[in-house]
Amino acid sequence: MVDTKTKDKEVIKKLEGLGNQIIQQINKGDSPTVELPVRSLGNIYFDQKSRTIKLGDKVSERQFLNIAHTRKFMQTALVANEIKKVINQSATVSIRDLYYALKHTIEGTQENTFENQSESDPLIEDLEASLNLLREELHLAASAKGIIAGNMVVKDGNDTIDLSKMGSGGWSVPSNVEEDRVEIKKMDASYVLFIEKDAVWRRFNEDRFWQKNDCIIITGRGQAARGERRLVQRLNREHKLPIYALMDADPWGMYIYSVIKQGSISLSYSEEKLATPDTKYIGLTVGDVDKFKIPKEVTIKLNQLDLKRLSELQSYEWFKHKKWQAEFDLMREKNIKMELEALSKKGIRFITEEYLPRKIKDEDFLP
Amino acid sequence: MVDTKTKDKEVIKKLEGLGNQIIQQINKGDSPTVELPVRSLGNIYFDQKSRTIKLGDKVSERQFLNIAHTRKFMQTALVANEIKKVINQSATVSIRDLYYALKHTIEGTQENTFENQSESDPLIEDLEASLNLLREELHLAASAKGIIAGNMVVKDGNDTIDLSKMGSGGWSVPSNVEEDRVEIKKMDASYVLFIEKDAVWRRFNEDRFWQKNDCIIITGRGQAARGERRLVQRLNREHKLPIYALMDADPWGMYIYSVIKQGSISLSYSEEKLATPDTKYIGLTVGDVDKFKIPKEVTIKLNQLDLKRLSELQSYEWFKHKKWQAEFDLMREKNIKMELEALSKKGIRFITEEYLPRKIKDEDFLP
Repeated sequence: MVDTKTKDKEVIKKLEGLGNQIIQQINKGDSPTVELPVRSLGNIYFDQKSRTIKLGDKVSERQFLNIAHTRKFMQTALVANEIKKVINQSATVSIRDLYYALKHTIEGTQENTFENQSESDPLIEDLEASLNLLREELHLAASAKGIIAGNMVVKDGNDTIDLSKMGSGGWSVPSNVEEDRVEIKKMDASYVLFIEKDAVWRRFNEDRFWQKNDCIIITGRGQAARGERRLVQRLNREHKLPIYALMDADPWGMYIYSVIKQGSISLSYSEEKLATPDTKYIGLTVGDVDKFKIPKEVTIKLNQLDLKRLSELQSYEWFKHKKWQAEFDLMREKNIKMELEALSKKGIRFITEEYLPRKIKDEDFLP
Repeated sequence: MVDTKTKDKEVIKKLEGLGNQIIQQINKGDSPTVELPVRSLGNIYFDQKSRTIKLGDKVSERQFLNIAHTRKFMQTALVANEIKKVINQSATVSIRDLYYALKHTIEGTQENTFENQSESDPLIEDLEASLNLLREELHLAASAKGIIAGNMVVKDGNDTIDLSKMGSGGWSVPSNVEEDRVEIKKMDASYVLFIEKDAVWRRFNEDRFWQKNDCIIITGRGQAARGERRLVQRLNREHKLPIYALMDADPWGMYIYSVIKQGSISLSYSEEKLATPDTKYIGLTVGDVDKFKIPKEVTIKLNQLDLKRLSELQSYEWFKHKKWQAEFDLMREKNIKMELEALSKKGIRFITEEYLPRKIKDEDFLP
């Protein structure tokens, strides 16, 4: 395992490389220029080999002496410089901190370096993509809202944390779960259950599902943040744990699943390090309604927005598998969606005591 | 301390009391009627003695034989009955679970018991208010999104959790933190810092602020949920800890503070058990800009919405203190607001190493 200091040195080397390149260009009398990967939709594709969304090879140039680029060029250099300072202070900051730290009126002018955080955020992404570094490696904290519990012990800093002893609360997943920060010390789980909703996670935690079934339960409270996704990838890669996703049976839940599995377009440049292509979809499905005799009253009719989103999902390359297409067709045919909480109609603990165990036993997954 | 079983028995007794009263009315040939506290604005006031927002004495009747009430009457009985079932199963459910569990088509009709969760949620509040019980005592989980760390050990179920050993993540605050669920086993903190934003909480946690300053740090990630508020109240009442709130210097941050301190209108019927009137506002204030020489560039001009909200705040009875009125006047005069992250302009650790320590040393609080 690479420790934080060694890793930080490498990151700083990359940042300095960028700066040195600019200095050399200036010394040679060339127009200072940085090359940046194009992050627009036209340069994003689904990579069949890694089974993740990826960024293509297209690059664009940002030139200091091009008046359309000058401001952004200056800002890019400021961002890179501030990140270096943050790393040297062994600190982690939010992207909003970074924006404020950099905002000032340029001496002798009325002009601010940045007017809005919407100016600094994309430049951070530029640096991540061009230096091939994760945001976390740049000491920038993303928001993290996940909760985890289960048969596993981690070491975070000097603290050893037993995730099977977190009471009814759970451990709040940190923003940075890279190897040098969060070490997996002990693993007694045989799979990971990724639960869309935190209320449902609490059902599984209250019923000690993870204890009875030797697993880990994690929720991202809706769309999963980077921390949760990266941790799940590590559990899959380092400990070969299967990952099962438990989502609402609607286009939104299924999309959240697809982000865990193959990534999102907006983070395409980092997906190899965030996505977990081995993830399987355990439920809910519209097919479950008949299979588990779920009363019609607790299903919900699709609305116009659902139908539109359903068509979009159905057209995505990573949903082309015939099993998924059949599920989408069935959803449209039956014209229903269903929330996880709807299973409470069959009894409070139906989801933990009957639904999930049977799904796993029958290996009744979508790919 | 009352244990969960004894407490549950009392709650069930109250629920059965409600049911028995209806049965007696039916047996007597009377119209089945329940009395419910009025929860509208006209029955809500700021109680000077408890220094919390409270519900007044007005009650209304819900009558089964009044056609305008019949559906709601039936629904109220269903909700009370389902809650009893949940308690008897020693489970906790979300209010959405409750809705789905109760939703069905009434035999021999085309009518559903409930069409929307917006029908069942207010009835839960009716029961809370009329039985004088917390939602948590009815085994209903509210959403909880808070994170906590610091010099304190709690016992939750069979798990003993040392909140000073939570790494960079923190303990996720559970929904139910009543005494019978979360026991405070060991207390080595001398105050609680309630931080509005989770990104700022992470700054304090990374800098081990709670360790260096013998305190507890908690965030509600914006508007605080019931769990965080109730826990803070317990820390204040049972351990006499001062509570300091650290919020954005804007009408929204100040409102979040006021909810922690004296409660909200929507939860008026429970505020005696949720609000912590001893809470003090440690910052940010507009006055801090001069005091700490914060550059103007990182302040933000008030917009129309801010100005409107500012006027509303200024009119609230619980903000009538002259120090608050002066702060509001200053905000309007300078026409600025400021986010916590703006302090990063003065250095990444300015907030933890200079700002907070000085504020506490000078006892520079707003009431």
